[in-house]
Amino acid sequence: MIPINQWIKIKAPATVANMVCGFDILGFAVNSPYDEMEMRLVPRSAGSTAVEAITIINMDTYGLPTEPEKNVAGAALIALIEEYEMSHPNSSIAFEVKINKLIKPGSGVGSSAASSAGAVVGANYLLGKIFSNDDLVRFAMNGEKVASGVKHADNIAPCIFGGVTLVRSIFPLEIIALPSPTLYVTIVHPQIEVRTSDARSILKQNVKLKDAIKQWGNIAGLVAGLMKSDYDLIGRSLEDVIIEPVRSILIPGFDALKLACKNAGALGGGISGSGPSIFMLSKEKETALAVEQEMKNLYEGLGLAHHTYVTTINQQGVQIEA
Amino acid sequence: MIPINQWIKIKAPATVANMVCGFDILGFAVNSPYDEMEMRLVPRSAGSTAVEAITIINMDTYGLPTEPEKNVAGAALIALIEEYEMSHPNSSIAFEVKINKLIKPGSGVGSSAASSAGAVVGANYLLGKIFSNDDLVRFAMNGEKVASGVKHADNIAPCIFGGVTLVRSIFPLEIIALPSPTLYVTIVHPQIEVRTSDARSILKQNVKLKDAIKQWGNIAGLVAGLMKSDYDLIGRSLEDVIIEPVRSILIPGFDALKLACKNAGALGGGISGSGPSIFMLSKEKETALAVEQEMKNLYEGLGLAHHTYVTTINQQGVQIEA
Repeated sequence: MIPINQWIKIKAPATVANMVCGFDILGFAVNSPYDEMEMRLVPRSAGSTAVEAITIINMDTYGLPTEPEKNVAGAALIALIEEYEMSHPNSSIAFEVKINKLIKPGSGVGSSAASSAGAVVGANYLLGKIFSNDDLVRFAMNGEKVASGVKHADNIAPCIFGGVTLVRSIFPLEIIALPSPTLYVTIVHPQIEVRTSDARSILKQNVKLKDAIKQWGNIAGLVAGLMKSDYDLIGRSLEDVIIEPVRSILIPGFDALKLACKNAGALGGGISGSGPSIFMLSKEKETALAVEQEMKNLYEGLGLAHHTYVTTINQQGVQIEA
Repeated sequence: MIPINQWIKIKAPATVANMVCGFDILGFAVNSPYDEMEMRLVPRSAGSTAVEAITIINMDTYGLPTEPEKNVAGAALIALIEEYEMSHPNSSIAFEVKINKLIKPGSGVGSSAASSAGAVVGANYLLGKIFSNDDLVRFAMNGEKVASGVKHADNIAPCIFGGVTLVRSIFPLEIIALPSPTLYVTIVHPQIEVRTSDARSILKQNVKLKDAIKQWGNIAGLVAGLMKSDYDLIGRSLEDVIIEPVRSILIPGFDALKLACKNAGALGGGISGSGPSIFMLSKEKETALAVEQEMKNLYEGLGLAHHTYVTTINQQGVQIEA
């Protein structure tokens, strides 16, 4: 356990959920961008509730809510404190959390997951690592519920575990770390708003069996490709016949951008999470940079403000500096 | 190329398609049962067609058609000969094939696939191995079309490649060999008839998105479990929320049998292909034998004639003895 009042620093990575064909089950963490957080244990006032035991301080200018129940990091920490107190009835803990969001909210690369995951990994570090990664994912999913109304783990899992993760099952929660070869990731964030709840509501609740079969062929191919370090197989498997055709209409220039990136040598890619960010995977750094240029060209041509990142898969997940 | 008139012997293994959660994409070959075949190149009459160049001789008592277009091995060989003649316009080849079916037709363990696959692997051997395994799968799928009306590859692929195979895509055809740890396979064939076409026609053409997500979580988990040799993960992933609930009603005692086998220590299992055979996977041989006993007890209790097999995954596929 880290002494009371001693600050730790936290780096919480952005994450790409779905990985094209793995809607709601696959995701990976990237080395850039990431949120910076600081956190410490503080004395808890006698008789205060779990909610009152959490202080959120925003270091950025996004103006996100600081009431713990409405803040994604706060909601995750409430779940952690409540479970801690069940096994430590005589102890009471309180946290101060400073959050410097470098991952823009609503960009589709796991901004809310980074805050939730960063907070619970930080809290666990402060408490002497008493919880498993699976526990931490469970707590952090409460933050996702605040953000999008749904307790999903496809950003939380890679943010905490690092690398590529498979959420095989939500109830009961089961996360599988998948090995992956070196992959360069190019991300473009066109500055438009796509609300996660809207991106979910436009999905059809039924899919054709023949499309589902295609999709699970690709998912099996992607998992096999990652584990065999077979780049061509990874590329061929990055195909989504169910979600992308519906969601991509929310993203300007999506089809043209994807085509240009693949022509520039990208293995493949698609919508990051529920968008609007788009990611592409490449085998070589030069390709990833060429892909970035295609993205810039396209969105400059459309007159649409955008950010790009060229990065790699983050294998560590949330990192702590004590 | 093997000399004219010289017989070769062929062992074509039974196969288990679908592997519970991998409908139409996964399958594996087993070491028992298998079909025995013999085959030779013979002189071809001038001016005869590809169909006339094939002679099928049944060595068993099932009375399957021997007209090449109606016989699964014949249909597969017609496709092979036609493609051979496109690249060898001045050559003409003819085959004699003796088939001793030891895999009962209609049992759901790839009886038709064994004949088709055995025939084309044998023909390729006689011709000096000029075709790739992918080519052979393509030819043999014509046999599946004769048998069930659909050109599917989920039995053909493991029969030709051996081991566990993933059919990532049918058009274009792409087969991925998946490594797997030692697995014991127990199969029970209750002596009832389930026609593949009936088993297909009762399937719903639409599935719920949330069920599809569960299914692809399990498929990803199964592929990862096989490649990591993680037996528990394999077991947990052997769950089918889409096909099995519909098809299992065609198989007497299915739910009770599955429960008894899992209680006896099986990792999991389900319907083999479109049934009626049921397979179970176990980590240890003793468990596989205990599972066999549960199967026998259940079907004896129901007064239903049945065969059982305890075997392992066949890693070689069709084997030739010259």
